[in-house]
Amino acid sequence: MNSVKPNYARPLDIKNGRVDMSHGSGGRAMAQLISELFAAEFDNKFLAQGNDGALLPAANGRLVMATDSHVVSPLFFAGGDIGCLSVHGTINDVAVMGATPLYLSASFILEEGYPLADLKRIVESMAQAAREAGVHIVTGDTKVVEQGKGDGVFITTTGVGVVRDGVHLSGDLARPGDKILLSGTIGDHGMAILSQREGLTFSAPIVSDTTALHGLIETMLDSGVKLRVLRDPTRGGLATTLNEIAKQSGVGMMLHESAIVVNQPVEAACEFLGLDPLYVANEGKLIAICAPEDAQRLLEAMRAHPLAAQASIIGEVLDDAHGFVQMTTRLGGRRVVDWLAGEQLPRIC
Amino acid sequence: MNSVKPNYARPLDIKNGRVDMSHGSGGRAMAQLISELFAAEFDNKFLAQGNDGALLPAANGRLVMATDSHVVSPLFFAGGDIGCLSVHGTINDVAVMGATPLYLSASFILEEGYPLADLKRIVESMAQAAREAGVHIVTGDTKVVEQGKGDGVFITTTGVGVVRDGVHLSGDLARPGDKILLSGTIGDHGMAILSQREGLTFSAPIVSDTTALHGLIETMLDSGVKLRVLRDPTRGGLATTLNEIAKQSGVGMMLHESAIVVNQPVEAACEFLGLDPLYVANEGKLIAICAPEDAQRLLEAMRAHPLAAQASIIGEVLDDAHGFVQMTTRLGGRRVVDWLAGEQLPRIC
Repeated sequence: MNSVKPNYARPLDIKNGRVDMSHGSGGRAMAQLISELFAAEFDNKFLAQGNDGALLPAANGRLVMATDSHVVSPLFFAGGDIGCLSVHGTINDVAVMGATPLYLSASFILEEGYPLADLKRIVESMAQAAREAGVHIVTGDTKVVEQGKGDGVFITTTGVGVVRDGVHLSGDLARPGDKILLSGTIGDHGMAILSQREGLTFSAPIVSDTTALHGLIETMLDSGVKLRVLRDPTRGGLATTLNEIAKQSGVGMMLHESAIVVNQPVEAACEFLGLDPLYVANEGKLIAICAPEDAQRLLEAMRAHPLAAQASIIGEVLDDAHGFVQMTTRLGGRRVVDWLAGEQLPRIC
Repeated sequence: MNSVKPNYARPLDIKNGRVDMSHGSGGRAMAQLISELFAAEFDNKFLAQGNDGALLPAANGRLVMATDSHVVSPLFFAGGDIGCLSVHGTINDVAVMGATPLYLSASFILEEGYPLADLKRIVESMAQAAREAGVHIVTGDTKVVEQGKGDGVFITTTGVGVVRDGVHLSGDLARPGDKILLSGTIGDHGMAILSQREGLTFSAPIVSDTTALHGLIETMLDSGVKLRVLRDPTRGGLATTLNEIAKQSGVGMMLHESAIVVNQPVEAACEFLGLDPLYVANEGKLIAICAPEDAQRLLEAMRAHPLAAQASIIGEVLDDAHGFVQMTTRLGGRRVVDWLAGEQLPRIC
């Protein structure tokens, strides 16, 4: 994203204007869109360099890099929009590696005809999310595709962070006997999107849990507990994320249904639509795995943070080369919790 | 991109299969697509970590970060495809900052129904381009949108590199008297795309110049010349890129038309379509600006490299607070070379 500003005949008509093909051409119109909208909102010294890339200070430590394209539909939903989601999602992918997120890039694929006023709302939301998280959006790109070749706005963010010394988190570090902790309720983001998409209304509104988790993770790392695995259960939900970890570590897991909390309206919506909240996406929750002797201390550290007040120990890691994830149900039975198969919820993030 | 592999009933049908919504769901089908296609091709130890982000060694020096979304249409063109283009484009944005490109992320937005065989060709092309460039694709993401909400494949790449000590390149460092060098012919990429899109055939084929420029740039930095500005003239072409630099540095420029080389078929195609090659995108060329006393030495260093055998000094930087870029024409006249206005060539990269 090059924020150099040529001389324009008149300012961008954000109120009534629409994205047109010239905004992706590399010429005067694109420069104007970037300087009057993106650079104005994301305002920081790195972006202000005005070059095609951002020059950043040397980073002291191991790096982490993560990327996510966001194609959520609808673009605006209860509790957020594609803008803040695209910031939170990538910050969380960096943070669950044990890294402090430092920089984000943001690349936009816009559909011709999309209202500039709505784009501005999205960009404002991104800027606010980045400010709240203490992360800079340092570089970017804008492309425009013809009407019918895109869907409003797609945003790809990439994050870079630095891992503090002594921290090593990875999905392959779960060991038999370890405890599995979950930071809060599940299914809120996915059901917020789906109920809006389907035009469903429930007595209590379902609100996305989209948020940046790096503050919570910092608290957890500061607690002195040796964490082995952190992961945010997004697409595919808690069930799929735990299956990934089980496979990666070559272990099994036993979950306890009674310890997994689902907000009442989410549960009602899932029942109505025939969905299992274990497979519904979250955007502000995390799974942590640690040695059994550390679990209680970790739980207390998590509960002391506002984003994990409802944290609980939801299960244990088992010695099982098949990598099965199982669950003891509320009724005392036992079932296998498999990977998500098929497409439960398309375009959820 | 998480490359953990669950157990599948059967391998992915790459020959006859198509992208479906389940490939973006976060579940089993997505894990299979990632492990059997993306991770298999991009194969490297960072991606093999199998986490949502990549853990990378500490980097020794200032960082550079650049990103580009690629929406080129058609996806395959003479001289390349969206795959290698998405690698070259971002490597070049990192390299023109004076950085050695180290890592790339790759994020895919796929349209439902796109043939897996074509996706495999694109991914192979990316993998080959990355190998040739000595850069690893360390992390990624895959999303799928419904038919009619995308256009085959969009790829967003983000690059991270490290700047060597003592190097400082920026678009605001051009000074009156400086010389402007260009590494070769202009307009090849844009006209390769456009002639294919319009179904035009010329006596000689027009081939995209898409390539990674970091090797050439390393040679230039090694020459001992103090470079002030490097930039690759992509969208908007040479004219727009020089206007950006002029504006950023608060200087004018005088170009010499006779020093700017255009391949004959590109010139013919531009004439036929009423386009000015100065505004047509390049994907394997660079502009360099240096002090006048260094220009000859830089020119020789560039010409010794195969990617800049046709390099030339195309003009000088002037003292002009208005930031006008002008050109002396072949006929001895003089004209202003303005920013690209409007949309000359949509979806060129």
